[in-house]
Amino acid sequence: MLDALPSDLRDALQWRYAVKKMDPTKPVSEDKITAIKDAIQFAPTSSGTQPFKVLDVRNAELRAKLRGAAFDQSAITDSTTVLVFAAWDNYSDARLDDVVDHHANERPDTREALETYFGNLKGMYLPRDAQTNFEHAARQAYIALGFGMLTAAQLQVDTTPMEGFDPSAVDDILNLREQGLKSAVILAIGTRDAENDWLAPMKKVRKQEDVLFERID
Amino acid sequence: MLDALPSDLRDALQWRYAVKKMDPTKPVSEDKITAIKDAIQFAPTSSGTQPFKVLDVRNAELRAKLRGAAFDQSAITDSTTVLVFAAWDNYSDARLDDVVDHHANERPDTREALETYFGNLKGMYLPRDAQTNFEHAARQAYIALGFGMLTAAQLQVDTTPMEGFDPSAVDDILNLREQGLKSAVILAIGTRDAENDWLAPMKKVRKQEDVLFERID
Repeated sequence: MLDALPSDLRDALQWRYAVKKMDPTKPVSEDKITAIKDAIQFAPTSSGTQPFKVLDVRNAELRAKLRGAAFDQSAITDSTTVLVFAAWDNYSDARLDDVVDHHANERPDTREALETYFGNLKGMYLPRDAQTNFEHAARQAYIALGFGMLTAAQLQVDTTPMEGFDPSAVDDILNLREQGLKSAVILAIGTRDAENDWLAPMKKVRKQEDVLFERID
Repeated sequence: MLDALPSDLRDALQWRYAVKKMDPTKPVSEDKITAIKDAIQFAPTSSGTQPFKVLDVRNAELRAKLRGAAFDQSAITDSTTVLVFAAWDNYSDARLDDVVDHHANERPDTREALETYFGNLKGMYLPRDAQTNFEHAARQAYIALGFGMLTAAQLQVDTTPMEGFDPSAVDDILNLREQGLKSAVILAIGTRDAENDWLAPMKKVRKQEDVLFERID
């Protein structure tokens, strides 16, 4: 299993798990947190929109509140930081125009092509309901989540991805509504307390290759 | 930018882009495709459910049909394979019971705890409408998509993530409905034809760190 992978990637995939108990006395270095954020920043997203914001929550009081909105999961306060991925609550003319402007500024002589492309995209996105568009934006955040988690594992940094929270409460705590954002997923970054984590000694379980995949020749 | 990352990861993030033109004369080795599939298999998912299947479509006739359902994107037929991530169309008692059985078989003496945990999960998932549950399952597929793309980049294998397709047509072509699945996203795996790809020479554009992230101290 995993034999085709280079050993560093294989080791990272085997080593990582969704840590349930973090050790608050072992903070992750700022360099490593920056590296994980770099991978999140460089993750691909649909049409390059990056339709989300990532809140890097260090504030202890806010994290205590977030923990209260997340079934009291201790990793929220015992980690070094908590990244809250907050996706756009909807697509809009203004938001997509900002993407066009940004790309046109960075890539000379592309404005016309960008405006045609994003004109078509608006024709598809803007008539859809807000929930459909939020879900699409949230999916893009999950690609970045994946990039962040795999990068963290390769740096031997622990993470806990969390969906078990009251999104509406989290939106309130972080004032997301005012920014047109909705919380999608949380990633705690910290250091495992392996001795006190019930999940640490458990065997990693995954579907067999021939169950998860079907090759059609 | 990206300075905090180890150079191999930084190079991979800079090197990858969503290839628009693949070179069909340069197939990706089976070893590398297997490695990418391994990373997808080992990606984390909510409660370990892995609520999706990945179709590894090599068949030329089916790929021509898929291309027809995907705005004629040439990477679908010019790549070495096309992975179609098909998420569960809904959660169900039977599907979640299968997860419990699988985990209980792999981890001795955990059945009771698993049944309690998944009992609570069923209480949350099963009353929800199918679309909400499909969207949740699709998000998990996107984590795996992220793991697959980042791994591919580290192996210097090109990929094209694609959302631009008619999901209902793809579901028909691959008989997904009968399996209780719905297409969520497609990942073509192949080799860039850099000379003939308009996107290849373009500068990579990402939101600035201080736009994408907000640190709250």
